[in-house]
Amino acid sequence: MKIYDTHTAPTPRRVRIFLAEKGIDMEYVQVDLQKGENISPDMRLKNPIGKVPILELDDGTCISESVAICRYFEALHPEPPLMGTTALEQAQIEMWQRQVEFALFMQVGMCFQHTTGYFKDRMTPVPEYGEVAGINASKYLNVLEKRLKDNEFIANNSFSIADITALCAIDFARVVKIKIKDDQVNLQRWYNAVSARPSASA
Amino acid sequence: MKIYDTHTAPTPRRVRIFLAEKGIDMEYVQVDLQKGENISPDMRLKNPIGKVPILELDDGTCISESVAICRYFEALHPEPPLMGTTALEQAQIEMWQRQVEFALFMQVGMCFQHTTGYFKDRMTPVPEYGEVAGINASKYLNVLEKRLKDNEFIANNSFSIADITALCAIDFARVVKIKIKDDQVNLQRWYNAVSARPSASA
Repeated sequence: MKIYDTHTAPTPRRVRIFLAEKGIDMEYVQVDLQKGENISPDMRLKNPIGKVPILELDDGTCISESVAICRYFEALHPEPPLMGTTALEQAQIEMWQRQVEFALFMQVGMCFQHTTGYFKDRMTPVPEYGEVAGINASKYLNVLEKRLKDNEFIANNSFSIADITALCAIDFARVVKIKIKDDQVNLQRWYNAVSARPSASA
Repeated sequence: MKIYDTHTAPTPRRVRIFLAEKGIDMEYVQVDLQKGENISPDMRLKNPIGKVPILELDDGTCISESVAICRYFEALHPEPPLMGTTALEQAQIEMWQRQVEFALFMQVGMCFQHTTGYFKDRMTPVPEYGEVAGINASKYLNVLEKRLKDNEFIANNSFSIADITALCAIDFARVVKIKIKDDQVNLQRWYNAVSARPSASA
């Protein structure tokens, strides 16, 4: 099996960190997003919406969507659990993973795509919306700061996929000049801890 | 336990349909989004980002995010499975559920929020972006039409959460005048089938 990956993009990084935490080796095939390799006819057969990452199994079955790929490996390699064990843990981790994804990760992505025009050959940038998305992302950092005041990690007491999504979002946010603020000391403490894990360099 | 719900909104409907398919009875408490009841200080304690649905357990623990609530009940009541049983099924259903959510459900939602200004007291509508989102949603109906040519349901051979997300998106899309096109006969066949299930009226 192999994963179609783009080393510089924030979404595939989520899967790389997830697999590194699980200790799973993987073959990665690099796809150049700027050249549009991801939207070639061949890649559209693997994922009709033309996005990476894509996991290709040995029989040719393809699974796209970073969290779906993580779900596959969580089921096959439950240890260490990154998506929860009990029903309540699973739900709480999914709640935080989704909130971080929608309110931070995607807002950073929309800010990038709509203010820079990086993908203007294949989408319609609306800079005014990009600015709004950036403000939304900044505001959500306040929610995380509050959450991390009393919690070591975002979703519960152990590292989870919610932390991975937040780390990838915050690192990528530098591209659009969104950073942890000086007074967000709990968020900074969390950021330092998750960045120091070996998986962060995957 | 109870769920804070808004009967007219597309997101909480996903949970109602999911629970109806599982045969789970639930107490629903109505929250008026237009009056801003969802962003009151009390509701912010239950969900810091002020969105419904929210599942409140008897001990006061709150789980927000529709798919996280569904995940909780999938773990506690596995039959009938709506999120997959094997690792591959779980991944494929999550893949389709996410693609339908991002490329259709959310695009319809952004089109509604940004073109109508319905929530302009609490967000900054960018009408030009709303138009783009509506076009994105319409385009994704073509992906579903192609998918449903050879598949009875969206993710695999049985009804899943991906079908629920798509049904709620397509029904809500009428508000912004996005509809299944006359030549999308497979999508229409699927729509008629899932709309006829008793759960659709939940």
